[in-house]
Amino acid sequence: MANVEMLTNGQFQAVYNVLSLALAAMGATTIFLLVVQARVLPRYRVAVVVSAMVCLIAAYHYFRIFNSFSDAYVAIEAGAPGVQDSYQLVKGVGFNEGYRYVDWLLTVPLLLFETIAVLALPRAVRSSLLWKLIPASALMIILGFPGEITNEIAPKAVWGALSTIPFIYILYVLFVELSRAAKSQPNQVGKELAGLRWLLLATWGVYPISYMFPMFGLDGADSFVYRQIGYSVADVLAKCLFGLLIYKIARIKSFDDDPAFEAQETKDIPVKKADASA
Amino acid sequence: MANVEMLTNGQFQAVYNVLSLALAAMGATTIFLLVVQARVLPRYRVAVVVSAMVCLIAAYHYFRIFNSFSDAYVAIEAGAPGVQDSYQLVKGVGFNEGYRYVDWLLTVPLLLFETIAVLALPRAVRSSLLWKLIPASALMIILGFPGEITNEIAPKAVWGALSTIPFIYILYVLFVELSRAAKSQPNQVGKELAGLRWLLLATWGVYPISYMFPMFGLDGADSFVYRQIGYSVADVLAKCLFGLLIYKIARIKSFDDDPAFEAQETKDIPVKKADASA
Repeated sequence: MANVEMLTNGQFQAVYNVLSLALAAMGATTIFLLVVQARVLPRYRVAVVVSAMVCLIAAYHYFRIFNSFSDAYVAIEAGAPGVQDSYQLVKGVGFNEGYRYVDWLLTVPLLLFETIAVLALPRAVRSSLLWKLIPASALMIILGFPGEITNEIAPKAVWGALSTIPFIYILYVLFVELSRAAKSQPNQVGKELAGLRWLLLATWGVYPISYMFPMFGLDGADSFVYRQIGYSVADVLAKCLFGLLIYKIARIKSFDDDPAFEAQETKDIPVKKADASA
Repeated sequence: MANVEMLTNGQFQAVYNVLSLALAAMGATTIFLLVVQARVLPRYRVAVVVSAMVCLIAAYHYFRIFNSFSDAYVAIEAGAPGVQDSYQLVKGVGFNEGYRYVDWLLTVPLLLFETIAVLALPRAVRSSLLWKLIPASALMIILGFPGEITNEIAPKAVWGALSTIPFIYILYVLFVELSRAAKSQPNQVGKELAGLRWLLLATWGVYPISYMFPMFGLDGADSFVYRQIGYSVADVLAKCLFGLLIYKIARIKSFDDDPAFEAQETKDIPVKKADASA
């Protein structure tokens, strides 16, 4: 997709600040998850560590995206000196949208991996689910890219439609096959898992909508700004919030597996006992 | 090898994004392996830590390669402002391919070291294998370099052939001598080890093929782009995926050595017992 030529001061600031917000959120979630991963039973740690890696990879890409964006535009003065009225695309630099696709190519398979890993399913079930989800997710992203970089409507629609096929397959595996496999999970985990899947559906839904903006004739600076904000907010929810939910599920399952661990980690049980005896 | 004078926008973006992808993958795998190395028995940890160091060294070099590449070319406008039609080599800067050879000189011996280390063979066997593999791998890379930097076909072929001799010797040691030494490994480890060797053969095979491009008359910008993508993808597989397989083997061997450790680290055993009794 060709870069937008001109942004108003407000448009530039909105994108600039939301990109920085995403970078800060990704970085902090990375460190948080790395520090707390030891607070779940060993069998759930890989899910939490992989969640941290997703945020780390995204933090790296937001750092690159932020720099690419701020290098790509230069303020043009109009009116009183010092008042920047607009931002002009710098010739020969350009804002690289490719980073987002590289990021998704690495992080989306990992997000699906952590979703499966946190359930500690029997090895054969886990392996079968991953062999379905991970290739499908890579295919979904690879098929979307040619549509993202073109400005023509027809190929955009074709690539978008092709990319939707693996997306629907992933939803089928997550909502039908995974439900079957996760039946034996504790009640509270079932609820959290449902939340995880709906979060995934809601945030991943932002990407195709943003992708289709140019097909609806939304093609100017406003569309660009909404797309950047939409992608960034969706990324923060799909990676940071998602990672924190993975950690929450890992905690619930750890407590469910080992009451002694729960007693040590929370004060709930001893406090209640003390209250009852008092 | 002389740098390519001109790249189209698409060619430049492809190399730029694949270099960034490799950097992100190497960095995240480094941190991941450093965090999870404690999750194998102490006797296997050195193999996992060395795998992390391989990824760290490669991350450093991809950072340098990425910067070297993006500094070496400048966008040239042709047509509408903001539309980058091509990238021109900046005079007096140049893209440094030497980083790749320095990287391989450090990481290839370490990759062979981690392959042997994770098997926890008897000291004498391990030492004998390493004394064969490590000097051969250094020789292989040193002999390849003069052929890489020349544009003439004859010396390229001679250095390539010389470099192939230690390569074939390494394959002999890995596929014949190592098989003999690893006979007493658990079944599952035998399978993983076979996977490791084939991954090594498949990824290392990319390097001589890329090296030979100019000998087949593939010498322009396309050849340059395919070579960069080929090297980068091969590096990600040969270092990140390879390191993760080393970790997997270390886990399998840890579980095999100590069932109590397995029970604590996975839920497979307790879950099955619980299901059976339910």
